[in-house]
Amino acid sequence: MTFFEKKLQSETVYDGKILKLQVDTVELPDGNKSVRECVRHSGGVAILCVDSDKILLVRQFRYLYGKELYEIPAGKLEEGELPEVAAVRELKEETGISAELVPYLKLYPSPGYTDEVIHIYLAKSFQKTGKQNLDDGEFLSVCFKHLTDVLVMIENGEICDGKTIAAIYKYVSENWR
Amino acid sequence: MTFFEKKLQSETVYDGKILKLQVDTVELPDGNKSVRECVRHSGGVAILCVDSDKILLVRQFRYLYGKELYEIPAGKLEEGELPEVAAVRELKEETGISAELVPYLKLYPSPGYTDEVIHIYLAKSFQKTGKQNLDDGEFLSVCFKHLTDVLVMIENGEICDGKTIAAIYKYVSENWR
Repeated sequence: MTFFEKKLQSETVYDGKILKLQVDTVELPDGNKSVRECVRHSGGVAILCVDSDKILLVRQFRYLYGKELYEIPAGKLEEGELPEVAAVRELKEETGISAELVPYLKLYPSPGYTDEVIHIYLAKSFQKTGKQNLDDGEFLSVCFKHLTDVLVMIENGEICDGKTIAAIYKYVSENWR
Repeated sequence: MTFFEKKLQSETVYDGKILKLQVDTVELPDGNKSVRECVRHSGGVAILCVDSDKILLVRQFRYLYGKELYEIPAGKLEEGELPEVAAVRELKEETGISAELVPYLKLYPSPGYTDEVIHIYLAKSFQKTGKQNLDDGEFLSVCFKHLTDVLVMIENGEICDGKTIAAIYKYVSENWR
């Protein structure tokens, strides 16, 4: 059986800096109506960079959780930007590292209310070529942590970021045991 | 160095069925001001249920992506509900399966703009005890798929859901090679 929901109406209730919120009325498979709250997002990129079993992580304050989080380097697509171009740019800006990237994993972070797609890349080869060059209002620190420690940090809840966990377990399941 | 952002002002621009949107003005570590767009969400649960190397998946239409997605069974916390209680309830409602669950993984799906926490549980023991009992407006089909096929579906982009990918790669990295 195939299910489908047909858009009947769409209202933009907020159009901001990193997201737009639309509230749509839809027709359900049984003919009834319902409401879908839709966060529209331009998409994100993230980069898994591994150096001799050490993982490149950034630490930054995340206002939504009121604390600092460890994540793999990541960022938002600019308008019209290709994910691969954005990934090279974000890695360079956040860490000063230039890399050759290959597609690694595509994630839908929370399909119930956002259309964001996160494109994760693996750094095939990389080198430090410059300094951090952060956006206005962006503050983060950079470190390499050993995979063994990273796995402990996931286990004990110190690393909770979804894209980071997905990329790291994929890497472990394919390369390292 | 520790970073912090101080809330100066908060405006609720939308308060809906599954999310609330707040736009906050914050003071950055350098003293400048910025805006944080905050999707407030009650939290989610998801369940990894493995039967002889076969993974329990549900398939449902996801309006945000305009197509059906395969995901592990999941749902939203009701007000005041404990994650573990919600996970047992959602698994039962979506699949008719009763299970004993243990905490498996905690995920922040997209820390740049949502405060959602997804609590993933592993089914230690389970049995089919009833029929699907879906919420109004919920339509989904249930299947078990072999882990080998699930990994191929992740590789070729047929499975993109973040919580599903994170839970499956964790399982593979710990149990199966």
